[in-house]
Amino acid sequence: MSEEFKRTEIESLGEFKLIERINEKFKLKNKSSIIGIGDDAAVLNFDDKQIVVSSDILLEGVHFDLSYAPLPHLGYKAVSVNVSDIAAMNAIPTQITVNISISNRFSVEAVDALYEGINHACEDYNVDLVGGDTTASKEGLVISITAIGKADAKDITLRNGAGKNDIICVTGDLGAAYLGLQVLEREKQVFLSNPEMQPELDRYSYIVQRQLKPEAKTNIIHELRELNIKPTSMIDVSDGLASEVLHLAKSSNCGMVVYEDKLPVDDESFKTAEEFNMNIVTCALNGGEDYELLFTIQQDDFEKLKNHSNIHTIGYVTDSKSGNKLVTRSGTVAELKAQGWKHF
Amino acid sequence: MSEEFKRTEIESLGEFKLIERINEKFKLKNKSSIIGIGDDAAVLNFDDKQIVVSSDILLEGVHFDLSYAPLPHLGYKAVSVNVSDIAAMNAIPTQITVNISISNRFSVEAVDALYEGINHACEDYNVDLVGGDTTASKEGLVISITAIGKADAKDITLRNGAGKNDIICVTGDLGAAYLGLQVLEREKQVFLSNPEMQPELDRYSYIVQRQLKPEAKTNIIHELRELNIKPTSMIDVSDGLASEVLHLAKSSNCGMVVYEDKLPVDDESFKTAEEFNMNIVTCALNGGEDYELLFTIQQDDFEKLKNHSNIHTIGYVTDSKSGNKLVTRSGTVAELKAQGWKHF
Repeated sequence: MSEEFKRTEIESLGEFKLIERINEKFKLKNKSSIIGIGDDAAVLNFDDKQIVVSSDILLEGVHFDLSYAPLPHLGYKAVSVNVSDIAAMNAIPTQITVNISISNRFSVEAVDALYEGINHACEDYNVDLVGGDTTASKEGLVISITAIGKADAKDITLRNGAGKNDIICVTGDLGAAYLGLQVLEREKQVFLSNPEMQPELDRYSYIVQRQLKPEAKTNIIHELRELNIKPTSMIDVSDGLASEVLHLAKSSNCGMVVYEDKLPVDDESFKTAEEFNMNIVTCALNGGEDYELLFTIQQDDFEKLKNHSNIHTIGYVTDSKSGNKLVTRSGTVAELKAQGWKHF
Repeated sequence: MSEEFKRTEIESLGEFKLIERINEKFKLKNKSSIIGIGDDAAVLNFDDKQIVVSSDILLEGVHFDLSYAPLPHLGYKAVSVNVSDIAAMNAIPTQITVNISISNRFSVEAVDALYEGINHACEDYNVDLVGGDTTASKEGLVISITAIGKADAKDITLRNGAGKNDIICVTGDLGAAYLGLQVLEREKQVFLSNPEMQPELDRYSYIVQRQLKPEAKTNIIHELRELNIKPTSMIDVSDGLASEVLHLAKSSNCGMVVYEDKLPVDDESFKTAEEFNMNIVTCALNGGEDYELLFTIQQDDFEKLKNHSNIHTIGYVTDSKSGNKLVTRSGTVAELKAQGWKHF
């Protein structure tokens, strides 16, 4: 067996050695990380900052499919999903804890690959891995991550602050991760029916990347600070834009109007939607897993970011009586609805 | 079907309603909990305190067996396990986040029962549930909890501070949870071979309770503050006393001597060990899941707690050259070894 496919059984290493092996690859970077892994708990210090905490759990077969998700990408994505929630509070992520449960189907090398992605994400987001738990599972892989971030109290942005006439903004583009998933699922079916077929993914590299290795928009938080803009409300786009718009509107007790022709969509997403005979607007509104930031700003702040290449204004805030509306390309006004995704 | 056994499918409620149902039962109690569940992340404020964070994951079939663990007890235990790690830092627990994954085998009422135990623990430990994630699993129940606590920087106690001639202390009693597990496993086998048999647990109520619904020793942390004692090192007893003594010795670069006849054991544990033909000392040293606190104090502090009914002195600290020793009842000195538990 070649070195490339070396397989070491986790049992042969033991739990403590496995944890040591993981830990030695992680170094603390943040001043707020006083003690990391190795004691009963991590110790953090934020002086006069407020702390934000968010936690998510991902299960094999429910949230990810290892037949097309490479382990380093999966590790990266698991961190992104949580860091995105910290960014959605207008806060700076600083630490994560990672709990994983793995069956003996996985080798030590597989665990290494997963943590390689986690480490890569820690570098990109400048966060420290400060704790966690590694245990056996009867089958499959479970990843549960808690992310911690900091912000001055005055900067923290909740979902409930949108006011009438505020402008609705979204970062990046929408629907790509969902369309990437369609491509991956199709190629998986092709492969299952004929294992000699190799997946054709070159033409879909952007949307596949958006599905497998999404990036949290922490850079936008730093840019908003520099532009001296505090959003009036903010949420990250995990369940689909429409669902998140409705969340902001409900929390802020207002209505929202979104323009179909303002929804940012990448060219590759557009072409793939055509190929799959899907409506690109439906994909952009309900696709989910975009991990973009959706936020509202006061009109006075509009000038400061109207030329920002990666922030798009897609509508405006009305009062709650007016409800939530989608203005179509043809000018028709329809009720904005979320299809959402049912986990249960 | 009677009201008592009402079963509501989670699917009929949906994810958002299920989360709402859970959340409305939890109220924030701590000044440091600024924003709890309901936004992208929780917001906390600790002023000039340091923060400690610990995280654990528990899986059905690996860490617990629902054939004898009632769901409220399991919820309580999952919180205790994490809060115990915070106490082991000599810190006060303040918040938890709870991620659960459940299959459609579980009803809404089952989720309610689990959170009833979590809520009960939050009351007992005065911690706030401030976030988490609820998702589907393909099968089985997964609970992943992150606990957060606070302490003045000067109070935080690590594993690495034990010094020569310090006194080794342990709270409560040892081995009970392990023996409780033996009883539960035996009764399960009896039940499986004859479902008409009802389990006989009355005689084992203490040790069964210690297995199913252990309590973290947060009260000891408050008492140590009042006695003006700062332990020189501390750890909680999760894998068995011997294993934890070795952890403290290794981290503190010292040796430790433990006296067999000083190990605190409850009468019910003693009798049950006899009944099972087990060595009670082995159970006390290696049983695990005690969730007691093991710590070292300076000799000067001994007078302050020598009459404490729930803290027992079990040995003393030597130098690293002397190794770790167990002095048996007959006066023989043996090497102290940890049998430990292999998860993998």
